[in-house]
Amino acid sequence: MGKRKLETCFSPALYEPGLHEGSIVVIIDVLRATSAICTAFANGAESIIPVAGIAEAKEYKNQGYLVAAERDGFVLDFADFGNSPFNFTRERIEGKTIVYSTTNGTGIIKMASSASAIAVGSFLNLTALANWIITCENDVVLFCAGWKNRFNLEDTLCAGAVAERLMESFLYTTICDSTHAALDLWSLAKRDLREYIDKVAQRTRLRDKGLDDCIDFCLTTDFTEKIPVIKNGILVNNIV
Amino acid sequence: MGKRKLETCFSPALYEPGLHEGSIVVIIDVLRATSAICTAFANGAESIIPVAGIAEAKEYKNQGYLVAAERDGFVLDFADFGNSPFNFTRERIEGKTIVYSTTNGTGIIKMASSASAIAVGSFLNLTALANWIITCENDVVLFCAGWKNRFNLEDTLCAGAVAERLMESFLYTTICDSTHAALDLWSLAKRDLREYIDKVAQRTRLRDKGLDDCIDFCLTTDFTEKIPVIKNGILVNNIV
Repeated sequence: MGKRKLETCFSPALYEPGLHEGSIVVIIDVLRATSAICTAFANGAESIIPVAGIAEAKEYKNQGYLVAAERDGFVLDFADFGNSPFNFTRERIEGKTIVYSTTNGTGIIKMASSASAIAVGSFLNLTALANWIITCENDVVLFCAGWKNRFNLEDTLCAGAVAERLMESFLYTTICDSTHAALDLWSLAKRDLREYIDKVAQRTRLRDKGLDDCIDFCLTTDFTEKIPVIKNGILVNNIV
Repeated sequence: MGKRKLETCFSPALYEPGLHEGSIVVIIDVLRATSAICTAFANGAESIIPVAGIAEAKEYKNQGYLVAAERDGFVLDFADFGNSPFNFTRERIEGKTIVYSTTNGTGIIKMASSASAIAVGSFLNLTALANWIITCENDVVLFCAGWKNRFNLEDTLCAGAVAERLMESFLYTTICDSTHAALDLWSLAKRDLREYIDKVAQRTRLRDKGLDDCIDFCLTTDFTEKIPVIKNGILVNNIV
């Protein structure tokens, strides 16, 4: 049997849906969306409904849902809280369905809709995610969400960490330059990830808004074994 | 006086023209376009007219110009030769104007048209290029041509090599994750560039077509001091 293909995409602007039909697509947005989603499931969330527009999020709020919504780091006035992982505490969300407003994220989920599965990855669920991917027989795309379509280092490093686990299984092969780059950058950064991440642009952006308190947490490996996946447009935990 | 900004763009799909008005844009397409262009000027070419379409290239041929034109590595039947740097020998091109057919390249030149200068970079003119950039006072964008809009390692490494020279001058600053990635990948690859480049996808593509004979040459540092720049849509040597 041939090896499974492993690819990495550094930005939504570089994603080619036609190439990835039948693959597992792993969405990575370390600072902070996918870290927040993994935290929510770790703390007992039942499901998360990703919505694109503010109007849609507001409508859900009026129906009584818990709503996490912010734009450029600022919590929207009608929302219950913003998108920091620290908002998704067990007390607030256990057993609940949360509406999560994310323009970027819903666009990515739509783009990846021809995939055989769409999972959410972060450092927080690294080992569980890699082990689950290995149990599947599909090709894999590590899809970095980036920031406003730009390449970013933190998502690339997380993709590199996942790619390392997959390549170590000897079940995957890659001829993708982005995957090689992610693996090599991860090999440099992993010795001291916190120090390395000091230079990334998103660190500065979050610091400027006083939103950088969660960065150390987002770089924590294996906080949870939950693997959020999209089923019928809604995020649920893959292994119940 | 503030430091000059240094940015890197990994693909035409990621280029944001509005951000780079007044910057120097360095186009990098190591395998093989910008290496071929640097070689042409090293061997005495007077100027190079970049054209997008085959019809346009053919028209120039009918007017008596030397035409370099290929698609996916195959020389077009009416052309004098293809796009390998080895085609641009002194005997053939000294003192001449060459028409160079490149769909990707002309698109990039158009995108970068709001820049204060557009230069052509490769390993072949690394030191001369970096020294010239430093004599200017502009911000700089290292624009990797990529392959079919994808990220590629060879252009990224060359961007990293240029960025290293610029950062060593202490005149530049960067908050661009792509530049940090390029610098870090270059720091890994430069110990043995030929060995590192063995894994890049374009190496395999060129080998499959028997076009990989020029790769070692394209990785040669400082073969020439020529700096091709765009003036009125035509490539000329910057320092005559």
